[in-house]
Amino acid sequence: MNLKDKFYRYIQNLQDTITSKLEAVDGKATFKQDLWQRPEGGGGRTRVIENGGVFEKGGVNISAVHGKLPESMQQYFGVTDADFYACGLSLVIHPKNPFVPTVHANWRYFELYDPQGNIVDQWFGGGQDLTPYYLFDEDAAHFHSICKRACDEHHPNFYAQYKKRCDAYFWNHHRNEARGVGGLFFDYCKANDEMNMKAWYDFVTEVGNSFLEAYIPIVSKRKDRAYDRSQRDWQEIRRGRYVEFNLVHDKGTLFGLRTNGRIESILMSLPPHVQWQYDHHPKSGSEEERLVKVLQKPKKWT
Amino acid sequence: MNLKDKFYRYIQNLQDTITSKLEAVDGKATFKQDLWQRPEGGGGRTRVIENGGVFEKGGVNISAVHGKLPESMQQYFGVTDADFYACGLSLVIHPKNPFVPTVHANWRYFELYDPQGNIVDQWFGGGQDLTPYYLFDEDAAHFHSICKRACDEHHPNFYAQYKKRCDAYFWNHHRNEARGVGGLFFDYCKANDEMNMKAWYDFVTEVGNSFLEAYIPIVSKRKDRAYDRSQRDWQEIRRGRYVEFNLVHDKGTLFGLRTNGRIESILMSLPPHVQWQYDHHPKSGSEEERLVKVLQKPKKWT
Repeated sequence: MNLKDKFYRYIQNLQDTITSKLEAVDGKATFKQDLWQRPEGGGGRTRVIENGGVFEKGGVNISAVHGKLPESMQQYFGVTDADFYACGLSLVIHPKNPFVPTVHANWRYFELYDPQGNIVDQWFGGGQDLTPYYLFDEDAAHFHSICKRACDEHHPNFYAQYKKRCDAYFWNHHRNEARGVGGLFFDYCKANDEMNMKAWYDFVTEVGNSFLEAYIPIVSKRKDRAYDRSQRDWQEIRRGRYVEFNLVHDKGTLFGLRTNGRIESILMSLPPHVQWQYDHHPKSGSEEERLVKVLQKPKKWT
Repeated sequence: MNLKDKFYRYIQNLQDTITSKLEAVDGKATFKQDLWQRPEGGGGRTRVIENGGVFEKGGVNISAVHGKLPESMQQYFGVTDADFYACGLSLVIHPKNPFVPTVHANWRYFELYDPQGNIVDQWFGGGQDLTPYYLFDEDAAHFHSICKRACDEHHPNFYAQYKKRCDAYFWNHHRNEARGVGGLFFDYCKANDEMNMKAWYDFVTEVGNSFLEAYIPIVSKRKDRAYDRSQRDWQEIRRGRYVEFNLVHDKGTLFGLRTNGRIESILMSLPPHVQWQYDHHPKSGSEEERLVKVLQKPKKWT
């Protein structure tokens, strides 16, 4: 089987595995599935959960699209007039309880073709990152330790490199703070002296396979912790920062909005209930303030 | 008095007039004032009201900034290395009751200088527009009729022109619908055969003076109307579209975020409580659906 079909089959299975596990943890809501077609070629399978016992809103989406490379993307990749294939799994989970962090993950594969249909370029990209509203150091350390273990199986430098790129990518420039406590972010993973495409496939799927182990233990540990209205308010205010990042800075979201992607699948990443208060600052010495300080200066977790 | 000082004095007074009136209508909350300085020159007077009896969140801000034209703006205006002066009043009001529309207005003045400090270019811009959550045709017609009256005093074509530009500017491209029912939008109002700068000043201040008459009667008429949770949910979902427009498409917001403007003054425009539900559609034949249909195809109101 060629690499693109193999990877697409992989993310189909991974979507099933992840949604089944999340439903089991939630115990109340199930994922609603929407199949959609892209007029220019390909389509996707969107799965969204809402108003669950644990998960207030979340999406675990796969898509595989192909055809002429859109003009807006030609410039981005520095090519003219090419055909492309892209597939990937994207997920964002917004739990109800403010002590359970939001999580985002994405694993994707891309091919570019010449007019004869030969592959002229191909690469993987992706990552996973955690956005807590209250910071339990041990949770961040757990998430990062699983990320590190998956990386270390494939290259001694990957974790340090991709952790750093994650902090840089999910930086909310206009707020001068990170979106969350990070994780991994990698892109343009192409064949080189050390890694052929098969080796990259093994790396990316290793990270994909690590997702549930990185996230679910944190959910289980925090989902029943009692919270009050002020803690929920804080979560909703911080979700505002999540919205700001996704709509102002996130390349994937903006690319989707500007190339006529399926809006509802793209914007499933936005949290269900969000607040903006004018010039809000957490109390000095509070747990809320401690989170913000860590986000302003990303730290080592392993 | 030169034009820039005259206009700045005008918006200072207008800010007082508008905030006093809004406080009187609200009857519970008052505006909190923040003075701020821009390190590179100038500053502003931000006034925000929150958790009022009528107004859930709103800002009425003035600023006057000057100095070297930021690089990002040089490209925008097609000039290199120039000094500038800009002042304006910006307001966004988010009422609590879903039957009272959100309103936005802005009136601004700009000057560009050569190295000797001579004015090489100068213009006015601005407008005012209404975003209802439930559509009362008579309210939209009232708002537009006041806009039209202010325009007609100065030029027979202005209302039609600026109404059309407003519909075009506040278009939420990725949703394929207008942000609201519009009003007026004008920019680069420069001296020409028909209008000198004094005539533009008279026009822009006429629009500014019309604001309270355009908006307050609508507030008074709707603010005590009973509403239920589902109507409030609809308002919060539609506020999500407002956030999407401001963060993805609004040039003023993006310009502010990218040029290190005062974030809290810029983002005071974001609504206090907002929702995103996956793939939400109003019921067929409902008032909510009627609103969306009008927003998809802007109509004549006068």
